[in-house]
Amino acid sequence: MCDRQDDRLTSAAARYPVVATTTHVRQLFENPDVDAVAIATPVSTHFDLALRALQAGKHVLVEKPLAASSADALRLIEEAERRGRVLMVDHTFVYTGAVQKIASLVSSGELGDIYYYDSVRVNLGLFQHDVNVIWDLAVHDLSIMDHVLPSRPRAVSATGVSHVAGGHENIAYLTVFFDNNLIAHMHVNWLAPVKIRRTLIGGSKRMIVYDDLEPSEKIKIYDSGITVNSRPESVYQMLVGYRAGDMWAPRLDATEALKTEVAHFVDCVERGTKPRTDAASGLRVVRLVEAASASMAARGRLIELDAPAGAKRS
Amino acid sequence: MCDRQDDRLTSAAARYPVVATTTHVRQLFENPDVDAVAIATPVSTHFDLALRALQAGKHVLVEKPLAASSADALRLIEEAERRGRVLMVDHTFVYTGAVQKIASLVSSGELGDIYYYDSVRVNLGLFQHDVNVIWDLAVHDLSIMDHVLPSRPRAVSATGVSHVAGGHENIAYLTVFFDNNLIAHMHVNWLAPVKIRRTLIGGSKRMIVYDDLEPSEKIKIYDSGITVNSRPESVYQMLVGYRAGDMWAPRLDATEALKTEVAHFVDCVERGTKPRTDAASGLRVVRLVEAASASMAARGRLIELDAPAGAKRS
Amino acid sequence: MCDRQDDRLTSAAARYPVVATTTHVRQLFENPDVDAVAIATPVSTHFDLALRALQAGKHVLVEKPLAASSADALRLIEEAERRGRVLMVDHTFVYTGAVQKIASLVSSGELGDIYYYDSVRVNLGLFQHDVNVIWDLAVHDLSIMDHVLPSRPRAVSATGVSHVAGGHENIAYLTVFFDNNLIAHMHVNWLAPVKIRRTLIGGSKRMIVYDDLEPSEKIKIYDSGITVNSRPESVYQMLVGYRAGDMWAPRLDATEALKTEVAHFVDCVERGTKPRTDAASGLRVVRLVEAASASMAARGRLIELDAPAGAKRS
Amino acid sequence: MCDRQDDRLTSAAARYPVVATTTHVRQLFENPDVDAVAIATPVSTHFDLALRALQAGKHVLVEKPLAASSADALRLIEEAERRGRVLMVDHTFVYTGAVQKIASLVSSGELGDIYYYDSVRVNLGLFQHDVNVIWDLAVHDLSIMDHVLPSRPRAVSATGVSHVAGGHENIAYLTVFFDNNLIAHMHVNWLAPVKIRRTLIGGSKRMIVYDDLEPSEKIKIYDSGITVNSRPESVYQMLVGYRAGDMWAPRLDATEALKTEVAHFVDCVERGTKPRTDAASGLRVVRLVEAASASMAARGRLIELDAPAGAKRS
Repeated sequence: MCDRQDDRLTSAAARYPVVATTTHVRQLFENPDVDAVAIATPVSTHFDLALRALQAGKHVLVEKPLAASSADALRLIEEAERRGRVLMVDHTFVYTGAVQKIASLVSSGELGDIYYYDSVRVNLGLFQHDVNVIWDLAVHDLSIMDHVLPSRPRAVSATGVSHVAGGHENIAYLTVFFDNNLIAHMHVNWLAPVKIRRTLIGGSKRMIVYDDLEPSEKIKIYDSGITVNSRPESVYQMLVGYRAGDMWAPRLDATEALKTEVAHFVDCVERGTKPRTDAASGLRVVRLVEAASASMAARGRLIELDAPAGAKRS
Repeated sequence: MCDRQDDRLTSAAARYPVVATTTHVRQLFENPDVDAVAIATPVSTHFDLALRALQAGKHVLVEKPLAASSADALRLIEEAERRGRVLMVDHTFVYTGAVQKIASLVSSGELGDIYYYDSVRVNLGLFQHDVNVIWDLAVHDLSIMDHVLPSRPRAVSATGVSHVAGGHENIAYLTVFFDNNLIAHMHVNWLAPVKIRRTLIGGSKRMIVYDDLEPSEKIKIYDSGITVNSRPESVYQMLVGYRAGDMWAPRLDATEALKTEVAHFVDCVERGTKPRTDAASGLRVVRLVEAASASMAARGRLIELDAPAGAKRS
Repeated sequence: MCDRQDDRLTSAAARYPVVATTTHVRQLFENPDVDAVAIATPVSTHFDLALRALQAGKHVLVEKPLAASSADALRLIEEAERRGRVLMVDHTFVYTGAVQKIASLVSSGELGDIYYYDSVRVNLGLFQHDVNVIWDLAVHDLSIMDHVLPSRPRAVSATGVSHVAGGHENIAYLTVFFDNNLIAHMHVNWLAPVKIRRTLIGGSKRMIVYDDLEPSEKIKIYDSGITVNSRPESVYQMLVGYRAGDMWAPRLDATEALKTEVAHFVDCVERGTKPRTDAASGLRVVRLVEAASASMAARGRLIELDAPAGAKRS
Repeated sequence: MCDRQDDRLTSAAARYPVVATTTHVRQLFENPDVDAVAIATPVSTHFDLALRALQAGKHVLVEKPLAASSADALRLIEEAERRGRVLMVDHTFVYTGAVQKIASLVSSGELGDIYYYDSVRVNLGLFQHDVNVIWDLAVHDLSIMDHVLPSRPRAVSATGVSHVAGGHENIAYLTVFFDNNLIAHMHVNWLAPVKIRRTLIGGSKRMIVYDDLEPSEKIKIYDSGITVNSRPESVYQMLVGYRAGDMWAPRLDATEALKTEVAHFVDCVERGTKPRTDAASGLRVVRLVEAASASMAARGRLIELDAPAGAKRS
C-alpha cells in the first residue's frame, strides 16, 4: 500500500495489518514481489503512475477515467501492449449484476433493435475543483453504454453551464449519435434536490428501466413498444401499432461489483487474457468525454468522433 | 357546437342536449348571439379558423399550440389587437394548482436565483402523423417554463431522431439558453416504457421537484442547495458549501385546470383584460418550437432567438 | 330511474334524457316493461327495496353490502330462489382485471398452498354516521377474499376504536381464521394521512402484492418464498430454505369493472345463470361483518362462524 | 472480547487487533479493568450472563429483548439497583434521528391527542428456531411505541399462525389497548415478498408516516385530520370536519444509532444516570411480548396487563 499522506497510510495499515506500506511509490514499483498494482489517485496523476507501473513490468488496474486525455490513454495502451501487461480500467458498473443482465438482454436480441439509451444521474453532489460534471459522473454512464450497446458512437452534442463563478460546469446534457437511428442521452447534475439514477433503454421488441436506487428490482423489462407497418394500404392508415404487455424483473446476481471486478483482474493477469473493461474501452470513454466537453464549450456544436482505437467486440 | 363529422356532433349533442349544433363553421361565426369561440381542431387549421372567428368579431380561445408557425401566430395577434378582441391560448398546465404554486414560489424569491429548469415528459404515446414530438409534448413544458421563469430564452439547441421510417422525430432533447447562467432542458419521448412527468427546478436558495403523476404532493420544495464562497482566503479552500434541510409539500388548489381556465377566459372577455396565457405567450412558445425543430434537424446546431414579440410580464 | 329527491332526479335526467324517471319506487316495480332493477341506496333500505323488487318479479342487483343483517340477506336469497329471479350483489372489485388475475393465479395452483391474505385499506375518508368502518371499507376486502380464497372462514377476531364521541369505530383490525393454517387480516381506517390500498397474498410457491393505487402493474408476483425441509437429518439442521427469484407483473384487463359487472348481470338475467357475485357471496360477507363487529365490541373475543349458507364454488 | 467459538473470536481480533480476547466469560467478568460489558448473545442466555456481570460489579448493556421472561427481567432490575450499576437495554431504534423526532413531536403536543400507532414490519426474513416472530420483530415496534407514546398499555389481543410444522408463529398481528381511545397495532411477518417498514401515527392535530426504508424523508408530517363538532345543532348535521393541509419532512439527525447509543451508555456509566432505554423499558417490552404470545395462542383472547414496574417518564 502506498500513500503520500502518512496519516492515511497509518489508518489503512491498522485495518489491514498484514499489508506492507510505503509513502514512496518507487519502492512499490521496484519491488519484484509485486506483480500488479491498482491506481486510485486523482485523475491528473493516472497517466504518470500507470506509465511508470507498466514500465516497471506491473499489470495495472486504473480507476476511471483511464487518463485525463485521449492522447495519454493511447500512450498507456501502447506501453501495455509493448510490455505484454494487462491494463484494465475500473469501470465498476460493468461488473454489477444489473449491467451484466442488460448486456446479456441486448446481445441476445431480446430487446430487438436498440432505439435509444437515456440516463439520468443527478443529486446534490460534491462539486469537483479540477473537472466538470461530465468527467465526474457521465463517465459512469458512458462506460455502461460502451459495454452494452452494439454500435459505436459517431458524434456528440452537449450543453451545460456552471453556477459557480469560475467553476467547471456542474450540470450537463450529452447527446451521442450513432450510425443508425440509435441515440443516447445523459443528464448529469451535481445540484439536484433528489438523487436519481435511472436509465431507459428502448428497443424494437422490449424496453428496460434500470433504476440503480431500487434495493431489489433494479432492472424492469417491459414487453411494450410499437410495431411499424411499413406498407400501409393507404396514406391515411395508422402506420404505428402499440403493444403494452407484461413487465418482468429478473433476479440479479448480488455479488459486490468490486469483488467481481478484482477477481476478473486477477484472472486476466494469471491467464494473460483481455479484461472486459480493457484500456481500449477506457480510451473510448475518454474520447467521448473530451468531445462532449468541447461541444459543451461551444453550446451544443456537433463534434464528430474519429475512428476508435481498436476494433470493438472483435 | 360545430364539428364537420356528423356522428361526433350527434354524440356530443346527446350529452349536452341544450347546445345548438352545426356542421358549418360559417353558421357559428355568423351567429350574432355567439360572443366567443373555443377552437379545438388539428393544429394546421388553427390559423384559418381563429382568423375567421376574430374577423367575425368573436373572442377566441385556441388549443395549444396557438398556430403552426410564428408568422401565423403573429398575424393572429395583430388581428386580435386591431379588433380589440381577446385571443387566448390553451396552455392548460398554467391553470393547475401546481404550476400556480411554482410561479408564486419563483416570483416571490423563495427559490432565490433560478439555476435550471429540467423536465421529462415521456411515455408510450400516440405517434402523431403531422408533427414531431416537440410540437406535441414539449409545448406543455415550454408553456409552463414561459409562465414561471422570469427571464427570456436567447438560444436553443436540440437533438432527436425518428424510429419510424419517414416519420417525425419521436424522441427529442431541447436545451434552452438564457442571458445568465440559467439553463432549461426538456426530454420528450413517445416511446418510453413508463410514464414520467417530472420537472426539477433548481434555485440558489431552494429547489423544487414537480411530479405531475403524484396524486397529491405534486410539488416538493427542498431547503437544500449550495452556498458559494466567492472570496476564499486561499485557492485551495473549499469554495462550495452544502445545505440539506427540510422538505415541504404545500397543499395545492385542486380545482380542475380547465374549469379555472374557462372561467378566466370568460372573465377576460367580460372585463376586456389580457389573459394569463395571452397570444403573446402562445407566440413565444411557437417560436421556441420552431427554433428547436430547426436545431434538431441540424443535430444540435445553436439557433439564436429573435427578440420576442411584446414585453413579457410588463 | 327512481329517486325520492326531485333535484337529483332532474340532474340525472338531464344527463340521460332517454331514461324515464319517477320519485315513486312503486311505479318502477309495477312497470311490466322493467325486467331488472339496480338498487343503489343507503344500506338500511336494501332489504325492503330488494324484497319488493323480487316480489314484483324483477331481477335485482344490490349495492354492497347485500343487506344490513345476515337474517335479511337470507330472507332475500329465499325470495329470489322461490321466484326464480337473479339476485346479484355489487362486489365491484371482483370484476376488476386485477382480482380476476389473482383468482386465476390462486385457482390454477401457481401460488401453491395459500398461507395468508393481508390487506390494508386506509385513507382520510368520510366518517359514516350509520355504520362502522368495517361495514364501509372491509366489505371490499372480504368480498375479494371470498372470491379468491379456496377455503371458508371459521372464526373472526377483531379490534378497533372510535375517535369521535358517540361515533362508530373508525379504525379496525380483523383477523379471519380458516380450517388450516391460512390466516387473513384486514386493516381499515378512515383517519389515515395517506391512502393505502395494498394486499399481500402469501403462498407456498409464490407471493402476490396487489397495489390498487398503481396506475399499471397493480399485481406483482414474486417467485420467492420458503421451502420447508420436513425431514431434517438432525434437529440442529436448518429446517427452512429461502428462495428469492424473479418478479413478474402481468398485463391486466383494463375494462372498467362496472361495465364488466353490468354486462355479466344482463347475461345472467338473459340466460338464467348464477352470477359470479351471487346473493350467497353477499350473505357470506355480511356474516363476516356481523361477526367482526361483535368481536370488536368485545375487544378481540373470538367469534365462531356458523356453517355458511349454500355450498361455495360448487 | 469474549466468544465461545474460537474462529469467530480470531476473525474479530484480526479486525480489532488492539482488543484482548478470551473464550471464557469468567475471565471477562473477573477482570478488574473491565467496567462495563455489552451482551450480544442468544436471548436464552441474556439473564444468566447479565446477572453474573452485574454480580461482578459491571455496568451492563443487553441486546433486545432484555430477557426471555418478565420474571428474569425483573430479577435483573433488582440486581442492578442493589449494586448501583447501569443496566441498559439495546432498543436501537430509540437512538435513531427518526424516532427522536417522533418522540419530540408527540411530547411537544404538535400531533395533539394521539389516536393510534400502526406499524408494519414484514419481509422475507430468517425463521427463528427458538422464538416466534413477535419476539424477533415486534420487539422493535414495541420499544419505539414505549418510547414515544405518553400513556401505558392496558391490554393486548394478538393473532397469528405458523406455516412450518412444529415451528413458532411466523406471522402475527398485535392490538394494544390503552386507557383512553388510543389503540396500537403491529403486523410482523417473516414470509412477505417485499420489505415494508412503515408506521402511521394519528393525532388529533397532525399525523405522521414513518417509513424506515426511505433513504431520506423517513418522517413525513401531515397537517391533515378531522375536527369533531361536539355540539351539532341537530342530530342530522355533519359531526366531523376534514382538513387536508401541507406535508412536511423535517431533516433528521443522520448520526448512526449505535454510535449515539454507545456514547449514551458510556455517559450514563460515567455520570451514574439512568439510560433512555433503561431496564424498566426492557421489562415493559418483555411483558407486552409475553402477553401477546399468550393471546396469540388463544386466538385473540384479551390479556390484561398488570401494573407496570416503575413509573414511566416520571
